[in-house]
Amino acid sequence: MNDADPRSTPSTTPASPRRAGIADVAARAGVSVGTASKALNGRGTLKEETRARVRAAAQELEFAPSTVARSLLTGRTFTVGIITSDSYGRFSIPIMRGAEDALGLGEMLAFLCDSRDDPIREQHHLRRLLERRVDGIIVAGRRTDARPPIGTNLPVPVVYALAPSADEADISVTSDEGGAARLAVEHLVRTGRRRIAHITGPHSHASARERASATVEALSGHGLELVGDPWFGGWTEAWGRFAVTQLLRAHPDVDGVFCGADVIARGATDALRESGASLPLEVGVVGVDNWGVVAEAARPPLTTVDLGLQEIGRRAGELLLAAIDGTPAPGLHVVAGHLVVRES
Amino acid sequence: MNDADPRSTPSTTPASPRRAGIADVAARAGVSVGTASKALNGRGTLKEETRARVRAAAQELEFAPSTVARSLLTGRTFTVGIITSDSYGRFSIPIMRGAEDALGLGEMLAFLCDSRDDPIREQHHLRRLLERRVDGIIVAGRRTDARPPIGTNLPVPVVYALAPSADEADISVTSDEGGAARLAVEHLVRTGRRRIAHITGPHSHASARERASATVEALSGHGLELVGDPWFGGWTEAWGRFAVTQLLRAHPDVDGVFCGADVIARGATDALRESGASLPLEVGVVGVDNWGVVAEAARPPLTTVDLGLQEIGRRAGELLLAAIDGTPAPGLHVVAGHLVVRES
Repeated sequence: MNDADPRSTPSTTPASPRRAGIADVAARAGVSVGTASKALNGRGTLKEETRARVRAAAQELEFAPSTVARSLLTGRTFTVGIITSDSYGRFSIPIMRGAEDALGLGEMLAFLCDSRDDPIREQHHLRRLLERRVDGIIVAGRRTDARPPIGTNLPVPVVYALAPSADEADISVTSDEGGAARLAVEHLVRTGRRRIAHITGPHSHASARERASATVEALSGHGLELVGDPWFGGWTEAWGRFAVTQLLRAHPDVDGVFCGADVIARGATDALRESGASLPLEVGVVGVDNWGVVAEAARPPLTTVDLGLQEIGRRAGELLLAAIDGTPAPGLHVVAGHLVVRES
Repeated sequence: MNDADPRSTPSTTPASPRRAGIADVAARAGVSVGTASKALNGRGTLKEETRARVRAAAQELEFAPSTVARSLLTGRTFTVGIITSDSYGRFSIPIMRGAEDALGLGEMLAFLCDSRDDPIREQHHLRRLLERRVDGIIVAGRRTDARPPIGTNLPVPVVYALAPSADEADISVTSDEGGAARLAVEHLVRTGRRRIAHITGPHSHASARERASATVEALSGHGLELVGDPWFGGWTEAWGRFAVTQLLRAHPDVDGVFCGADVIARGATDALRESGASLPLEVGVVGVDNWGVVAEAARPPLTTVDLGLQEIGRRAGELLLAAIDGTPAPGLHVVAGHLVVRES
């Protein structure tokens, strides 16, 4: 199939018909736009006769009382903006879905803007959203490192999701990185592992550092020591494979590996299997993310910590609604993750 | 870190301050809301003195001329809705990004709604978007099978992205599935493969069927025959592994495999490698999708056909803007993909 036959006619796709606006309704009823708005929104003090005349005009013109008209008088647009920095979508999609759940209950619709990790795009989107008079903004990141506030003295509330604001007086929701490490260690220890190593992402990432120290602490709570130092590297399968190969050379008796991401865990399981280890009999592996395409396709499928990104989005939406309604809850809100047990 | 200290004060997160609305500006200037709108938007016929008085009032109240006010008179809201069915995000994110590129140039902002493949949610979102008086709607799918139109006689234009509308008079943009197969076959033949097999997704998917028949056709253009029948199965690594194992049993001399998805190709490369084949020396593999996390992590990294999802989104955005401006281009618009050569 190729582009449409140019001879075909635009039968069912109307060429943007002019819909009756509130100005048309006002003109037909012989009142001002403001009066028409009040009549249709049931606000203000108007004679019942005027209200009825405006309603009749609206009906004749098939004018559906729109949010646009409603917002004129309430000062609210019932819209929020979501600015995401995550052009890949791995983190932003579940956060958006959770936010949509919370905002939908508040009858809010969300504008989505993708900053693509570019501060200039981010400021551009912020200005456009403020021009649109959004009632509030969610700024969703893809790392848990604190980020600079998106602006100061903004006219609407802002909630930061996943990447908290560096200003503790802002409203931020993030994941429980230490808790994730504790869930993983508990599972490994409970399933009989005693010589546990940790392979994770770059040391420059707050989440990698926090999980590593929480891992050491959780092990020590069981009278255990981490096998070797934490392996800081990258969030890739190749790093997981490489690190396991080196780990086995230094510590061939390792029987548990906590990996800071499912992609690392997948590389780790591949390298362990290819080294001849029987999984999960001889070595247990736990990842972080519960990223379906990686965790489910691994051999064996990965046991992993789900950081609750959708719940983070839902909490962000709820906190934003509360702030819009005049009850902001500033500070850092931490959402707990949960373990998803598969076969690794 | 835990929830915020309740004693901390909401210093930088204002509790939704009441912003000056156009009604406030009108009241301060002593004119109607309609007059204030006209003055601020530079439309209509007004005395220059009135216009100046309204502008002064707006400045005093720090009122920024908003899109809300502007939309009152133009009948346009400069917003569009994007309804996606792809809760996983694999397809919708690049489509949205492309649409955002096109729409941003038209000064449009996009509401994002996720139907989660649920027709009831989809109709709910449609109603909400129409209530918000969006200027147009993009309906993004995750399969290329034609879908029923989202509505009939809608008051705004609709463009279908990836999943075309079953009504050919609608505006649809989709991928070139036959072209994808031709790109893959050309590459395999050009790199010396002569005994080529095809492993793909379920026969119930239009894209799987179209690629399979285009594969047979493209091979025949080179005087070659497909090795065995097309292997219809699932869009999973496990299927790729299983199918290759069976394929090698029936046709141990196969030297090229075109896989209908990167996940299938990844499973195929794993199974080929584990069977002792040297990749890419003895067998060449080509996937479809160019999905980074899969294609780049495969061993060897996958050569694959990028279907141009972002370009599909961009085209959808452009077609929607044109339709809103009164020049709809009904019919099916097909976006060509391109080959991304890696090491497989």
